[in-house]
Amino acid sequence: MKLHNFSAGPGILPKEVLEKAAQACLDFNGSGLSILEVSHRGKNIIEVFDKASALVKKLLKLDDSYDVLFLQGGASTQFAMVPANFLGKKAAYLNTGVWAKKAIKEARLYGEVDVIASSEDKNFSYLPKTFDVPSNVDYFHFTSNNTIYGTQMRNFPEASVPLMCDMSSDIFSHEFDASKFSLIYAGAQKNMGPAGSTMVIIKKELLDKQVRTLPSMQSYKIHADAESMFNTPPVFAVYVSMLTLEWLDNNGGVAWAEKRNQAKADLFYSELDRNSQFVGTVDKADRSFMNANFIMSDSSKEEAFKQMLKEAGISGMNGHRSVGGFRASMYNALDITSVEALVDVMQNFEKLNA
Amino acid sequence: MKLHNFSAGPGILPKEVLEKAAQACLDFNGSGLSILEVSHRGKNIIEVFDKASALVKKLLKLDDSYDVLFLQGGASTQFAMVPANFLGKKAAYLNTGVWAKKAIKEARLYGEVDVIASSEDKNFSYLPKTFDVPSNVDYFHFTSNNTIYGTQMRNFPEASVPLMCDMSSDIFSHEFDASKFSLIYAGAQKNMGPAGSTMVIIKKELLDKQVRTLPSMQSYKIHADAESMFNTPPVFAVYVSMLTLEWLDNNGGVAWAEKRNQAKADLFYSELDRNSQFVGTVDKADRSFMNANFIMSDSSKEEAFKQMLKEAGISGMNGHRSVGGFRASMYNALDITSVEALVDVMQNFEKLNA
Repeated sequence: MKLHNFSAGPGILPKEVLEKAAQACLDFNGSGLSILEVSHRGKNIIEVFDKASALVKKLLKLDDSYDVLFLQGGASTQFAMVPANFLGKKAAYLNTGVWAKKAIKEARLYGEVDVIASSEDKNFSYLPKTFDVPSNVDYFHFTSNNTIYGTQMRNFPEASVPLMCDMSSDIFSHEFDASKFSLIYAGAQKNMGPAGSTMVIIKKELLDKQVRTLPSMQSYKIHADAESMFNTPPVFAVYVSMLTLEWLDNNGGVAWAEKRNQAKADLFYSELDRNSQFVGTVDKADRSFMNANFIMSDSSKEEAFKQMLKEAGISGMNGHRSVGGFRASMYNALDITSVEALVDVMQNFEKLNA
Repeated sequence: MKLHNFSAGPGILPKEVLEKAAQACLDFNGSGLSILEVSHRGKNIIEVFDKASALVKKLLKLDDSYDVLFLQGGASTQFAMVPANFLGKKAAYLNTGVWAKKAIKEARLYGEVDVIASSEDKNFSYLPKTFDVPSNVDYFHFTSNNTIYGTQMRNFPEASVPLMCDMSSDIFSHEFDASKFSLIYAGAQKNMGPAGSTMVIIKKELLDKQVRTLPSMQSYKIHADAESMFNTPPVFAVYVSMLTLEWLDNNGGVAWAEKRNQAKADLFYSELDRNSQFVGTVDKADRSFMNANFIMSDSSKEEAFKQMLKEAGISGMNGHRSVGGFRASMYNALDITSVEALVDVMQNFEKLNA
């Protein structure tokens, strides 16, 4: 039985993508070799990378003033690479959760950091609304979706300085004007593929603005010049990302994903607000479509609820180790039938316990 | 038809490993989920990492004074991480090829580099033999196997300073005393898995000797403290590495691999030396068991030879773009029957052309 996969990440991938990935492990496109044992310099692998880049640009409506890179090391590597490349004197950061804080910590190794707003006072249960992005900074960095806390920014701040954003957990989940950003990065393992690849979208004009000498692997320019093959790239992770982007494109792209994600979020949150047994932990206006956090009215009943989830084939619902409670992650590939199954369990639980 | 895979890397993997990898993409150990879409914090994934580490230690006969890490970014990331962590004042390096040179370049960002010997004068076609490792350096770094040129060091230098080695292309290919080393790293994509994971073996006592403040992702100590899960690791690449290590262990370990690699190398090189149509490019004493480089006596016949290779289902034999000619990579997973097929083609080619 295929489980309902609410994992916060690595998260659910489309069934057809998993089937094609399995096939490529045995024989990649009839080549007589597995995708796991062929050179990244081969024509067919270069085609995979080119196709993945082209799909990213198509799905986000970006023109050729942007490069798309597939790197390694996750968002955690980007936390340092962004300031290493572009923090000359001072940068502005928004503090909306654990990952934002980690980005701030790394940035401080390279220069001054102006944390222009924070929601740490209420354990990151809301998004700061009133802040101005200063004009005398090298860039402004924020996190669009806070996976651990379940808040999401779907309308983005304006700024006169370059916008740089960690979109690891909600890239491709709703429409937005990507051309307002100078740099976007995302670990693949939520909405676009398996763990092991990190996508970076960067405005080409930035590539010549590296502010210090860096190890080669930390330089966006070096990776861009080598078209993501400065060193051996994570071939399979990029291939599965390409398949996932193709699946998204074939189904109607980001507009389709947004409609579907809105429907799933509406279904889940309306049940959460109606049901006496559960309490949301996030300000309603700031709720994420991707990660819905909640606790139980009576925490002594957690084990009983977990048991019912398990019996219904629902997996991955535990809250992050740092916050506890529950979290329903509803990434692009999750079908609404899985949310229906979850809502059923919540309703049954209420009947048994109310 | 499965091709004979002589690719220099990513290179050949065992058939049974590829089959298990494909199965795990569909359903991981009967869990109801693909290995590509589950949390790295799950018990069954932690078991994969623990098992991979334990197998590395078992295969190399290492005790618990070592940590085994699975990181991202390939050897190219290690070229900078090694000096970033441990080059305080000066380090000694051996220059035996492109990858050694890249390691030297990155090290110079962090301190003084003493290149104690080089074979660049003859395009890296031999290994320097006469050098002394100074005792007043922080460590001595070298490359055990030079993939691009086809030289291999199977007996290692003695030194009074910590030995640090890039074994990307020959780890687990022959027996050696790993306990003489303080740090060994290897991109997985030659002898132990697919691209996307980098193994680091590090003596625990080194972890507290980091010489400067670094971004978190560049610190061995941070990765070791988090047991390779400081951030989301490349789950699938580590899983396939674990399967490959298991395959090696089940077959008899490194001693078995060495015997098999010696037999393949003997078969190939004796044909190379006998056959009038081909010329080895490396000093005989320094020939690699992993990568055998050669050119044709008459380079105008290259295309005809390539055509015969293709007809025999032999793939991946082109030399590296930087040196040209041919290269037969014979990693652990390559069966001797593939070398026999190659030797057949070489003999038939001679009959037609001598």
